[in-house]
Amino acid sequence: MFESAEIGHKVDKATYEKELPALREALLLAQDELVQSNGFQVIVIISGVDGGGRRESVHLLNEWLDPRHIETHGMGEPSDEELDRPPMWRFWRALPPRGKIGIFQGSWYSMPILNRVYGDIRNVDLEEAMERNVRFEKMLSDEGALILKFWFHLSKPFQASRLKALEKDPRTRWRVTKRDWHHFGLYNKFRKTSAEALRLTSTAQAPWYIIEGSDERYRSLMLGKIVLEAMRLRLSSEHGKTHSIPALPSLPQVDNLDILKSLNLSQTLDKADYAKKLETYQGRLNVLTRDPRFQKLSIVAVFEGNDAAGKGGSIRRITGSLDARMYKIIPIAAPTDEEKAQPYLWRFWRHIPRRGRLAIFDRSWYGRVLVERVEGYCSEYDWLRAYNEINEFEAQLAHHHIVVVKFWLSISAEEQLKRFKEREKTGFKHYKITDEDWRNRERWDDYEQAVCDMVDRTSTEIAPWTLVPANNKYHARIQILKTLCDSIEAGLERVKGKK
Amino acid sequence: MFESAEIGHKVDKATYEKELPALREALLLAQDELVQSNGFQVIVIISGVDGGGRRESVHLLNEWLDPRHIETHGMGEPSDEELDRPPMWRFWRALPPRGKIGIFQGSWYSMPILNRVYGDIRNVDLEEAMERNVRFEKMLSDEGALILKFWFHLSKPFQASRLKALEKDPRTRWRVTKRDWHHFGLYNKFRKTSAEALRLTSTAQAPWYIIEGSDERYRSLMLGKIVLEAMRLRLSSEHGKTHSIPALPSLPQVDNLDILKSLNLSQTLDKADYAKKLETYQGRLNVLTRDPRFQKLSIVAVFEGNDAAGKGGSIRRITGSLDARMYKIIPIAAPTDEEKAQPYLWRFWRHIPRRGRLAIFDRSWYGRVLVERVEGYCSEYDWLRAYNEINEFEAQLAHHHIVVVKFWLSISAEEQLKRFKEREKTGFKHYKITDEDWRNRERWDDYEQAVCDMVDRTSTEIAPWTLVPANNKYHARIQILKTLCDSIEAGLERVKGKK
Repeated sequence: MFESAEIGHKVDKATYEKELPALREALLLAQDELVQSNGFQVIVIISGVDGGGRRESVHLLNEWLDPRHIETHGMGEPSDEELDRPPMWRFWRALPPRGKIGIFQGSWYSMPILNRVYGDIRNVDLEEAMERNVRFEKMLSDEGALILKFWFHLSKPFQASRLKALEKDPRTRWRVTKRDWHHFGLYNKFRKTSAEALRLTSTAQAPWYIIEGSDERYRSLMLGKIVLEAMRLRLSSEHGKTHSIPALPSLPQVDNLDILKSLNLSQTLDKADYAKKLETYQGRLNVLTRDPRFQKLSIVAVFEGNDAAGKGGSIRRITGSLDARMYKIIPIAAPTDEEKAQPYLWRFWRHIPRRGRLAIFDRSWYGRVLVERVEGYCSEYDWLRAYNEINEFEAQLAHHHIVVVKFWLSISAEEQLKRFKEREKTGFKHYKITDEDWRNRERWDDYEQAVCDMVDRTSTEIAPWTLVPANNKYHARIQILKTLCDSIEAGLERVKGKK
Repeated sequence: MFESAEIGHKVDKATYEKELPALREALLLAQDELVQSNGFQVIVIISGVDGGGRRESVHLLNEWLDPRHIETHGMGEPSDEELDRPPMWRFWRALPPRGKIGIFQGSWYSMPILNRVYGDIRNVDLEEAMERNVRFEKMLSDEGALILKFWFHLSKPFQASRLKALEKDPRTRWRVTKRDWHHFGLYNKFRKTSAEALRLTSTAQAPWYIIEGSDERYRSLMLGKIVLEAMRLRLSSEHGKTHSIPALPSLPQVDNLDILKSLNLSQTLDKADYAKKLETYQGRLNVLTRDPRFQKLSIVAVFEGNDAAGKGGSIRRITGSLDARMYKIIPIAAPTDEEKAQPYLWRFWRHIPRRGRLAIFDRSWYGRVLVERVEGYCSEYDWLRAYNEINEFEAQLAHHHIVVVKFWLSISAEEQLKRFKEREKTGFKHYKITDEDWRNRERWDDYEQAVCDMVDRTSTEIAPWTLVPANNKYHARIQILKTLCDSIEAGLERVKGKK
């Protein structure tokens, strides 16, 4: 969920100052069009961790846009007046009318998340509140509103250093309260809770935009560009269309960094070390799967990655240490006729393993948001809704004690070229390289964007993605085996905890 | 929820035999078109009370349609195989492919409802399961499936007599099991639980069709006609359109009976009796509102009804016994500019009362599914989604200890004409009659249909409708006062129960 917001996004001063005037002008123009057309309201939610730049963002929007058509609401604890009514009453009261922009610092997310972090409500109550929010936003969106939800994120170490820096400076010391440090002590709990809340409420119509808050210029440009692009998209869509309004498909590019680019692909492992570690982890995996508690679990392992990234080899290193009756490899190619006649996820559901078994997917349901998206095999609406459907699918698996492990094997374009050429030269590898591989390669950047969006939207607290630098096959295989072992171990612990 | 399915719907043999051949032929034609086009699957869920005709309905569909393109699933307790997987796995497995009709007797509703009736799960678990069902069906519907959900209902006395009759006849005795009688003992609990489940899952895309199960011919014609009309509607809608597929807006007309027609409008009350009862109930109301526990409640009373049905007079009889600081009457006319610039429900939310207060709505949010529907002021999609939005709205009120009381004041067309003419004659009543009233009168049947649909879809266990025969004003006013007093009393009891 937060992967893309922990990689040190940054925008230098020169770039920022060059981009800013055009952005501000465009924002004002878009706002003017909104005011003139009077066609819909814009609802901006500003949330996230302390010190992530919420206050500053609210400020910026008021500075950049015409404040006469903005209503800003800083909503804290409810008043007596408000406590007398149902919780949503105060938000209804504060909704902006058509033609206006309403900015909420403190929203229908704040109290449920905080109450859960403080342990005042149960997890089902949080889920219920999030379902209510989904229905509320669906209604707003059906009524024509544009909903933009921002989550400003800081990694734990960064947040600590930020709070310290603010405290050190006499001019900003007042901004750090005891409550901030208390919250920081709850960082892990807060992160887990908010990840769950974001997963449950990031819909195709109203997705969350998660922004790294550490660099003020980066964060500000992102905020401005998302508001601008989303408003433009909405202004340009057909009039009178009041439902299934498209959201921004991807975050705008503001710096030249993403989670794939930030991977260190140069990690290596020498052959001797590899042989030793391979034995260790294969042994450990074998032992884990023979643990009596394993009969109360099942494992779903997903392998995705660039063409020629070494998925097959990695899978063989896993199955090499397992009893053949215990696992099944499911290679996913084009769907059969029978599969095409069914809803998209049907062909994956059918392979969900029994207790005590592993299902290893060589490519998976993520095809929907990768190849099908990039090649246009399905509509934008279809792949946008797929993130949610996939999260729901995996939540059902996790809820049933199925450990979901997902690997993205990442190689560089150069390494891929080398491997392609090798495959063409080597007779017995020839079948592994097709025209399609070469075609996919031409769309490298589109795939990279799709992978980043996929990780942002489907790496959840219950089924996280593991990004595997795979230029060095030895290194990749060991990382995969180790991650799998760790995940199974954690799963076994949970079984123990349950009964 | 079940009002329309407890009024003794019936179809005589001659009508049935006259209609059946055409229906069967049309069904086969529609099915053939479905098979040829191969465009979508039809998912039919058959649920309801024991003895309501579920088994027979499954049978009928298989008899009427070409069984080669039907898959029937009688799903009971899950098998070992199935228990090893997440609960939805077995339903995924059983989904029909495009071009086919899948009939589910026993569905993703059965276990959660039964488990809740038996007290094996909590209410939040039921709600969670229903939310899951909504997401599942939304996905199916987004993927193009047509979902038809039937609930066969029997009133409590009728179910008892039916079970007894089956038991008496040696040829059918085998069909009544101990489990049936045990279920019957749980009738009230089952009714309440299923009403909640139906409310939470009756969406615009996949509404429940609630059918009175007592008369076999009526039930069968309804089933056949709904399947037919829904398939035709779907077959005729644009190709390639895979979301926001329209559902049937209303139930087909099969007999000449509906909840309004089944009201006994000839009930009267003489003036002396009225005066006495008026005093009694006004006194009781006054006492109830001065109960200390009343400070933990609020009341929202909704008045809807035919033009000239006597809403205003009834409201005055309520407020006559109340402290003026305690209540507010909210007359709902055309929305103001400010209100038009907001989502539909905004103008009602703003009037939600504080604790210890009453808000009396003279017309209400139900305008959306009455006048706006009939006059075409909003799109079909808008008023179809409104049922859900309204139920959600009222659930939020009820959840916050707001007692929601809703009255439909019903007069006959003749009585209305009499009152209209009187208003025209009497100088000081002249302002009360407008051209619009005469226009509305011309659409009497459309309004009647809209009212019946409204009651079917929004009379919930938390906010039921009270239908008030209002040809006699005295009788109507007393019924209203009594219902209001009873509802407040029940509300006060719940407050006591809470803390």
